[in-house]
Amino acid sequence: MKAIRVHAYGQPPQVDDVPEPEASGSDDVVVRIGGAGLCRTDLHIIDGWFADAIPADLPLALGHENAGWVHAVGPAVEHLAVGDPVICYPNLTCGVCAPCRAGDDMRCTRGPNIPGLICAGGMAELFRTRARAIVKLGASTEPAEVAALADAGVTAYHAVKKATPGLGAGSSAAAVGVGGLGHIGIQCLKAMTAASVIAVDTSEEALKLASDCGADHLVHAGGQQAQQVRDLTGSGADAVFDFVGEDSTISDSVAMLRPGGTYYLVGYGGTVTLPTMQLVLGEITLAANLIGTYADLAGLVTLAGQGKVVLHSSRYPLEAANDAIDDLRHGRIHGRAILIPG
Amino acid sequence: MKAIRVHAYGQPPQVDDVPEPEASGSDDVVVRIGGAGLCRTDLHIIDGWFADAIPADLPLALGHENAGWVHAVGPAVEHLAVGDPVICYPNLTCGVCAPCRAGDDMRCTRGPNIPGLICAGGMAELFRTRARAIVKLGASTEPAEVAALADAGVTAYHAVKKATPGLGAGSSAAAVGVGGLGHIGIQCLKAMTAASVIAVDTSEEALKLASDCGADHLVHAGGQQAQQVRDLTGSGADAVFDFVGEDSTISDSVAMLRPGGTYYLVGYGGTVTLPTMQLVLGEITLAANLIGTYADLAGLVTLAGQGKVVLHSSRYPLEAANDAIDDLRHGRIHGRAILIPG
Amino acid sequence: MKAIRVHAYGQPPQVDDVPEPEASGSDDVVVRIGGAGLCRTDLHIIDGWFADAIPADLPLALGHENAGWVHAVGPAVEHLAVGDPVICYPNLTCGVCAPCRAGDDMRCTRGPNIPGLICAGGMAELFRTRARAIVKLGASTEPAEVAALADAGVTAYHAVKKATPGLGAGSSAAAVGVGGLGHIGIQCLKAMTAASVIAVDTSEEALKLASDCGADHLVHAGGQQAQQVRDLTGSGADAVFDFVGEDSTISDSVAMLRPGGTYYLVGYGGTVTLPTMQLVLGEITLAANLIGTYADLAGLVTLAGQGKVVLHSSRYPLEAANDAIDDLRHGRIHGRAILIPG
Amino acid sequence: MKAIRVHAYGQPPQVDDVPEPEASGSDDVVVRIGGAGLCRTDLHIIDGWFADAIPADLPLALGHENAGWVHAVGPAVEHLAVGDPVICYPNLTCGVCAPCRAGDDMRCTRGPNIPGLICAGGMAELFRTRARAIVKLGASTEPAEVAALADAGVTAYHAVKKATPGLGAGSSAAAVGVGGLGHIGIQCLKAMTAASVIAVDTSEEALKLASDCGADHLVHAGGQQAQQVRDLTGSGADAVFDFVGEDSTISDSVAMLRPGGTYYLVGYGGTVTLPTMQLVLGEITLAANLIGTYADLAGLVTLAGQGKVVLHSSRYPLEAANDAIDDLRHGRIHGRAILIPG
Repeated sequence: MKAIRVHAYGQPPQVDDVPEPEASGSDDVVVRIGGAGLCRTDLHIIDGWFADAIPADLPLALGHENAGWVHAVGPAVEHLAVGDPVICYPNLTCGVCAPCRAGDDMRCTRGPNIPGLICAGGMAELFRTRARAIVKLGASTEPAEVAALADAGVTAYHAVKKATPGLGAGSSAAAVGVGGLGHIGIQCLKAMTAASVIAVDTSEEALKLASDCGADHLVHAGGQQAQQVRDLTGSGADAVFDFVGEDSTISDSVAMLRPGGTYYLVGYGGTVTLPTMQLVLGEITLAANLIGTYADLAGLVTLAGQGKVVLHSSRYPLEAANDAIDDLRHGRIHGRAILIPG
Repeated sequence: MKAIRVHAYGQPPQVDDVPEPEASGSDDVVVRIGGAGLCRTDLHIIDGWFADAIPADLPLALGHENAGWVHAVGPAVEHLAVGDPVICYPNLTCGVCAPCRAGDDMRCTRGPNIPGLICAGGMAELFRTRARAIVKLGASTEPAEVAALADAGVTAYHAVKKATPGLGAGSSAAAVGVGGLGHIGIQCLKAMTAASVIAVDTSEEALKLASDCGADHLVHAGGQQAQQVRDLTGSGADAVFDFVGEDSTISDSVAMLRPGGTYYLVGYGGTVTLPTMQLVLGEITLAANLIGTYADLAGLVTLAGQGKVVLHSSRYPLEAANDAIDDLRHGRIHGRAILIPG
Repeated sequence: MKAIRVHAYGQPPQVDDVPEPEASGSDDVVVRIGGAGLCRTDLHIIDGWFADAIPADLPLALGHENAGWVHAVGPAVEHLAVGDPVICYPNLTCGVCAPCRAGDDMRCTRGPNIPGLICAGGMAELFRTRARAIVKLGASTEPAEVAALADAGVTAYHAVKKATPGLGAGSSAAAVGVGGLGHIGIQCLKAMTAASVIAVDTSEEALKLASDCGADHLVHAGGQQAQQVRDLTGSGADAVFDFVGEDSTISDSVAMLRPGGTYYLVGYGGTVTLPTMQLVLGEITLAANLIGTYADLAGLVTLAGQGKVVLHSSRYPLEAANDAIDDLRHGRIHGRAILIPG
Repeated sequence: MKAIRVHAYGQPPQVDDVPEPEASGSDDVVVRIGGAGLCRTDLHIIDGWFADAIPADLPLALGHENAGWVHAVGPAVEHLAVGDPVICYPNLTCGVCAPCRAGDDMRCTRGPNIPGLICAGGMAELFRTRARAIVKLGASTEPAEVAALADAGVTAYHAVKKATPGLGAGSSAAAVGVGGLGHIGIQCLKAMTAASVIAVDTSEEALKLASDCGADHLVHAGGQQAQQVRDLTGSGADAVFDFVGEDSTISDSVAMLRPGGTYYLVGYGGTVTLPTMQLVLGEITLAANLIGTYADLAGLVTLAGQGKVVLHSSRYPLEAANDAIDDLRHGRIHGRAILIPG
């Protein structure tokens, strides 16, 4: 079968012919890929950023946002049938450690154990994962439509879900940055809370996308955005989701909060630098977010199946992976790139 | 001014000319009435049901669902201005007892202290209440449109708000009985939760209203309704709201629940009779509901101001109160009757 | 090895010589039993109450409250070592259904699947269970001391844990019935909440046990107990735990609640019969409880390891199982009976 | 009567003879002071730190931690009687703004309105406050024993209360800094949660106090404290309370957390400087804390009345205020200084 594999860091991956994986382990599941999302993390892997921290044997098949149909199952797998449409949670978990027991899948003590990063991923015709990582899709959901929810989408959902107890009637939430994360976050806010949603971005095109996603107010980030959010909300937003996480968005986002509000850090890159005096007098909470749980992914694909969350994506044939990678490197992709096996 | 007053239990109230109330107390607020809701409780008051339990001096002006504009304020009232559009919370609270401090307004230890039940209500041109009972409306909200939210509406909202933590993505909620309470409850569920909403009623007209209110599934209560809800949901609904509360809807509603689900009792009249064995094996929770808090009313009118909750009502001139009462007694009112001073 | 097996319903079980179980399945764990709790449910099994509802092949080894040390593990079990002290969660769960994913172990869709009830239990020298059912004990915890926490104890803990959000400083909780469930419940309340704990029982000896367990107030149930609890608390308890669940304790317990309070139904047998008017005006919540989760058992044995919860028990040699059964049938056991293999 | 008043910033306050305050306003309450706490904030007021930000007319009577007995009440005050023992919440609130309605007293939109900072405080024989600021004490509580709970104590309680949902059986909490805030925080943790409490301080004397307050583990902050906390807890504490808030304790405290844990910032002075990468990978939450609510103070004095929280204090006669101030400036006070009118 075909697979997109990295042979050397810093080099474009190759379209290789490789043996098909088998469901040889008792809990193995082989998925026939319907779509595999391409993500900025894939560029980092190709470029060798993780070569030392998380070493993997090369060649490595990429792909950690995978969806398709069950192709084969190991002998202990009873709850899945060949042909079931599925999406794959990105971390392979043990199921018996304390975090797994608490549903805190990203902190499984055996991991992180992420195909596409440390073992063969899903940019291929077939992909081997494990039973605990499989989320069933509704009969009417096409796997390629939802594949990229497995990483970017679930991160946005996770942050929004954490915020829901504080987002009742009359509340307000600002979404800073309306890209791959942000446009999912806005839809989740509309589907799961009663908050008025304020989208903030420097790009008019991004604000147009926010409007299509249901944002109630659009704020162009031209320097006065924090003041504009405070004006729209009276005394500041109850929650601000920073889908960017650069130094400038951090200070801006905190300045958008009402006293007692919560800043949800989702994107990252910058450094939080805040005087304790400001934090204490404003009684600010800062909540960082790391991907999400299996239950989060299940919740998110349910919303997608109900039509409440739609992922904006561009499709490429699997063999054209390097075109997609090139387009992603040069900012030519709208939404997420999805690779589709032929 | 005109006021609708009960002179003798069992007799129709009269349209009287009475002196205008004044904001003589330091925290008093006089409201010029824009609309006063007529409620089944008013029939019970007229009929003398509460004559012994909650004695009031006759003649008594009816009206516990009141909205309008600030007309005059007492000397200690600083946060309200003449002309502000407002709705009146039905219980006058002390603000310093433990329940008041906890925002649990219905359980103020000085009460219940409800105008229209124990002192002059708002079926009149002017109505005296207190500053703590005033909820400001948005500039674009017409008081007459929301008056009936002050009692029936806030009860439905209160129950739904209690349920929100369990109604995330993929959850389901059944609303049993789609009348004055139920049609508000369904809209609150859609506005505040991600649950799929199943409306259950014996009347096709009521189910049509449910559909207009956004219900996702309609179940005609023809004897198989509990089974139908279980079929629609897989193993039963996460939450069932019983807006009727008769013996038959109680057993039916509990039978609609998934194991571990919660039954919200909102309407009342019947008796709960359930074997402990059934409750324990199903790990059922039963949550009864009593009106709601000031914060609930504020939240609900915010949803109304955003167009997320619309009250179905029929308007009558204040002087035609007895026509409205007659129509209510004979089931001829669609939605809630609202009395409008001339 | 020795095992206590039921050969015919209605007959005393026999002490049999049986083959030792093996860890033949990939996730199997064989536990060398340190202690197996004897429970009233065992009497019901012997008496054939479940013969039709939950059929099991006879002879059946009893024992669903099991603790000991890991003796052997299946090939897929990596997180346990021979010799680890452990206690066994009573339900064998699949780990992949929605309730399992949510940590709601008692509602695993493959179950109930309870050794000692439908397959060989732990009243034996060795006991086969599965990796997902194993809770590790601290190095200083003796398995026989905690065995009976696996069913009765975890049920009491589960109810108390559910109540903790409402039991802050200044709150009060009543425990009705201070037997096997109640004495654990009182200790959990003291360890996990700031509530004042009021113990209610008809027996002075039980109240003495309650006092030893840390109860702050003792109320002899001589007919005025509901009034006494209301007097002690001002307006009623925030939470009442009914560890009995008979008709009389149900009405009594609800009468002990403050308006807005919650009745936790733990024991069962009677029928809940309450007018909706009483429930609504008091805004009462009734929460039924079914055993507990794996996480609950892990939490409870942590409290036991910290000396915060001590189980009162009487030990019998395994071979003397019928003496213990006889003593239990005739009310001669103080605390829980634990069978200890020789 | 005597009062301790600042006449000029930078000068010691004077013991003045001033007129007695009267309960002239409808909601006024005059309290006969049993004890007034002296706090580091008083030094800052004397030194003029707030002269520009929060201007006050001089001379100004100090004292924002006040307790005593009701001496006189205004005409609208019905729930208090002369002689009632009381403690005074430090912020005078309006009761009708949205934060007041939500019980979020520190964020009353009319404030901050703090006697002792902007108007006459309680370092005097009599002190005028308002009905909404009065918390009744139990009959057995001596006001002077609890006066300092009104500010320092309630801040520690507030942070602990926020943390309680995550501090169940098996959890762990570290308290960094065991001074006036920390020793109350440790007692609150023991009274309200099931967490194991680890006290961290550079001083052996402080650790001795922590031990007296019930801390389960003591860690001397000699450079390895973060590692020691991680070792004690396995993977880090669930919650870390930083009662110091200097740059060094901030980085240390965050390093003590388990992945997914929460850092409660209580003391302040330093600057939070943390890379988003560290926050996101660890999924850290940072929760800043500002004093507490009226309900927090009521809860805390209930714990004090139950003997669960004891404030360590040193008493001075009111006229010796400058001795106390001098001792506080030179680190010679153990616990909190309380001024007692003669």
